[in-house]
Amino acid sequence: MRSWIAGADGSGFGPEHLPYGVVTHEGGHRELAVRIGDRALSLARLHDLGLLDGVVRHARSVFDTGSLNCLLSRGPAEWAAARRRIQEIVTDAALADMAREALLPLADVVLHLPWDVADYVDFYSSEQHATNVGRIFRPDGEALTPNWKHLPIGYHGRAGTVVVSGTDVVRPNGQRKSPHEELPTFGPSRRLDVEVEVGFVVGTPSPQGTAVAASELTDHVFGVVLVNDWSARDIQAWEYVPLGPFLAKSFATSVSAWVTPLAALADARVPAVAQDPVPLPYLADDDPWALDLRLSLELSRGAVSAVVARPPFAQMYWTPGQQLAHLTVNGASLRTGDLFASGTVSGPEADQRGSFLELSWGGREPVAVEGMGEVTFLEDGDVVTIRGEAAGPDGTTIRLGDVVGRILPAR
Amino acid sequence: MRSWIAGADGSGFGPEHLPYGVVTHEGGHRELAVRIGDRALSLARLHDLGLLDGVVRHARSVFDTGSLNCLLSRGPAEWAAARRRIQEIVTDAALADMAREALLPLADVVLHLPWDVADYVDFYSSEQHATNVGRIFRPDGEALTPNWKHLPIGYHGRAGTVVVSGTDVVRPNGQRKSPHEELPTFGPSRRLDVEVEVGFVVGTPSPQGTAVAASELTDHVFGVVLVNDWSARDIQAWEYVPLGPFLAKSFATSVSAWVTPLAALADARVPAVAQDPVPLPYLADDDPWALDLRLSLELSRGAVSAVVARPPFAQMYWTPGQQLAHLTVNGASLRTGDLFASGTVSGPEADQRGSFLELSWGGREPVAVEGMGEVTFLEDGDVVTIRGEAAGPDGTTIRLGDVVGRILPAR
Repeated sequence: MRSWIAGADGSGFGPEHLPYGVVTHEGGHRELAVRIGDRALSLARLHDLGLLDGVVRHARSVFDTGSLNCLLSRGPAEWAAARRRIQEIVTDAALADMAREALLPLADVVLHLPWDVADYVDFYSSEQHATNVGRIFRPDGEALTPNWKHLPIGYHGRAGTVVVSGTDVVRPNGQRKSPHEELPTFGPSRRLDVEVEVGFVVGTPSPQGTAVAASELTDHVFGVVLVNDWSARDIQAWEYVPLGPFLAKSFATSVSAWVTPLAALADARVPAVAQDPVPLPYLADDDPWALDLRLSLELSRGAVSAVVARPPFAQMYWTPGQQLAHLTVNGASLRTGDLFASGTVSGPEADQRGSFLELSWGGREPVAVEGMGEVTFLEDGDVVTIRGEAAGPDGTTIRLGDVVGRILPAR
Repeated sequence: MRSWIAGADGSGFGPEHLPYGVVTHEGGHRELAVRIGDRALSLARLHDLGLLDGVVRHARSVFDTGSLNCLLSRGPAEWAAARRRIQEIVTDAALADMAREALLPLADVVLHLPWDVADYVDFYSSEQHATNVGRIFRPDGEALTPNWKHLPIGYHGRAGTVVVSGTDVVRPNGQRKSPHEELPTFGPSRRLDVEVEVGFVVGTPSPQGTAVAASELTDHVFGVVLVNDWSARDIQAWEYVPLGPFLAKSFATSVSAWVTPLAALADARVPAVAQDPVPLPYLADDDPWALDLRLSLELSRGAVSAVVARPPFAQMYWTPGQQLAHLTVNGASLRTGDLFASGTVSGPEADQRGSFLELSWGGREPVAVEGMGEVTFLEDGDVVTIRGEAAGPDGTTIRLGDVVGRILPAR
């Protein structure tokens, strides 16, 4: 599959990828778009040109809007139809002259949160991450809680503070108390951290009172984003017993500006890791798959940038299908726009840990980064970039949308 | 203040109350309404009659819609203007002939969720409840966690499963493991419970990165609903460490069909309970007030109905203002439609406990209810009703909208 759009093939954003986003161009309205190479292809403009007529029901309401939600709500058949047609447009040279009018250089557009987030759930599905955090937060207990291998632990986050990549993050204030302090103090978090995660965007809703099976994931989940679940570890350590993380997480969660359709990741599927004990039947999946997404965590401080970790998403213990099955087994409904994230991705190696909490082992073992000195947690002005890539069809590479954020000083 | 509407005065839904809801009449569109006596006064129809012209900016978009959200977003000045005008309409006999056309008997309407819930946060602000739960869930530890008196503990719930009073609740399935079982099992919750709570509905949003002070509560909070935060205790006990309650709560949360404006509860304000230790300055409030809402929990099983608890809301440890200040101190934004609930309301007396977990002390001390026998947790077919009332002006009584729900068998 080759595109007539210069620079698209081989860029990670070729015609086999086509992630969806929302852009504004020169201060205009929000436009739904797909990314191809270093351009945004406006679906609103393609629709105006008549190139999307009849692709889905009421095509205007799907394509000529400033949000992905309407397309999300349509389900797999229309997702596939839209994708097929857009692939045709970007690969058929006969359409180039017309479609070119809908191409906008990325340098000329502003990227927005591509969909309205309904509920946001954050899982905790990396065995290595949960083990590391257990050892750091609860040094006197078992690293994994007794429930960990029986169910994919998760909790609800704050949907209203999910922001698009590129949004600055203000260092949160809050209550902090270290074990050797008698009383908590108030002030800016001193242990501001990242969590490298992968998020799944729900399209098709499900009714309250019914469960969705793991094998039904592709009926409901539209696509994938990278997630930085910013975390204030000092606030978290003091607040999280007994009801879980709250203010330590709710100040901001950053997601990619581009939503990669699951359909683009067919070649990234790999068998899921073996589970022992075998989970209860409601978590069973005839064909359990994981996604082999190769992630990286880059820190930029001053003039220096360095990749400090390469977390391996393929090694997550709980699969996305199991997360979905667990999330709904109690009858919780899904809504169009729900986001569920994997939890921090960490591998067994020291340089595969997806948080500074783990990389610096609770701050006690700073990471030496060339040209940057020793690193524990985030400083004001730091810029964090999470990247991800995966195998596409025919030897191509899919690059997920980056997640970038700069830390601003506390207010 | 007297109304020309028969039966309104003295009903708990007199002209001093005027809670907002959303109704449909004979299968028509959703209409914003206020409750007066046993009628819904349609604001859409009042608007069509010209009786709401100029009351707020773009009055049609506020009143002629099927959701409270637009009014919520307008802020205190327009909330007051709308309320003033509606009070005028229901009390001025000269307007009776016209306005009567907008009155719909409650028996003829269906009540809907009155606003779109953005984020849902559940606090844990009753000292007695937290103490009871601590004793029941963690018998070997301190009843209150070390952080409890320093900050209002809270967590995010699932906004998408907030339902209006009257909606049936399907008993959730899930993983349960009692301490004497070696492995978890899957099935319907055997310890289905209620939580009697009071919820605060946010109108005016706040930008991400800024904090809202406790004293600014009335700038942001529009009104109050009763909340039943249904809870599956067996699921909760197994899942909640370390990230908090998840599936034990996310299957359903019921709220009143009528949102009582805070303005109607001015006479219900009482001084907040004393706090020791004095909280950190960001939780200070020059004029800390609580609301003296008298709540009741009624269980109907078979042909018998009985009030099993009368939780006293005035005795909550953390005030709504402090909850709001805490919720935003890390820079978390508020959105129109956010709901934050108090946590279970329990008083010191055995018949003031707002959950069956507490009433039956973890199921070990069943409650004897006349005509019903011994009660621990909820059975299929049970109907739970939460009611609340408060002092209104001039000796009147304000009745909050009930929260009713029937338990259906697990699927």
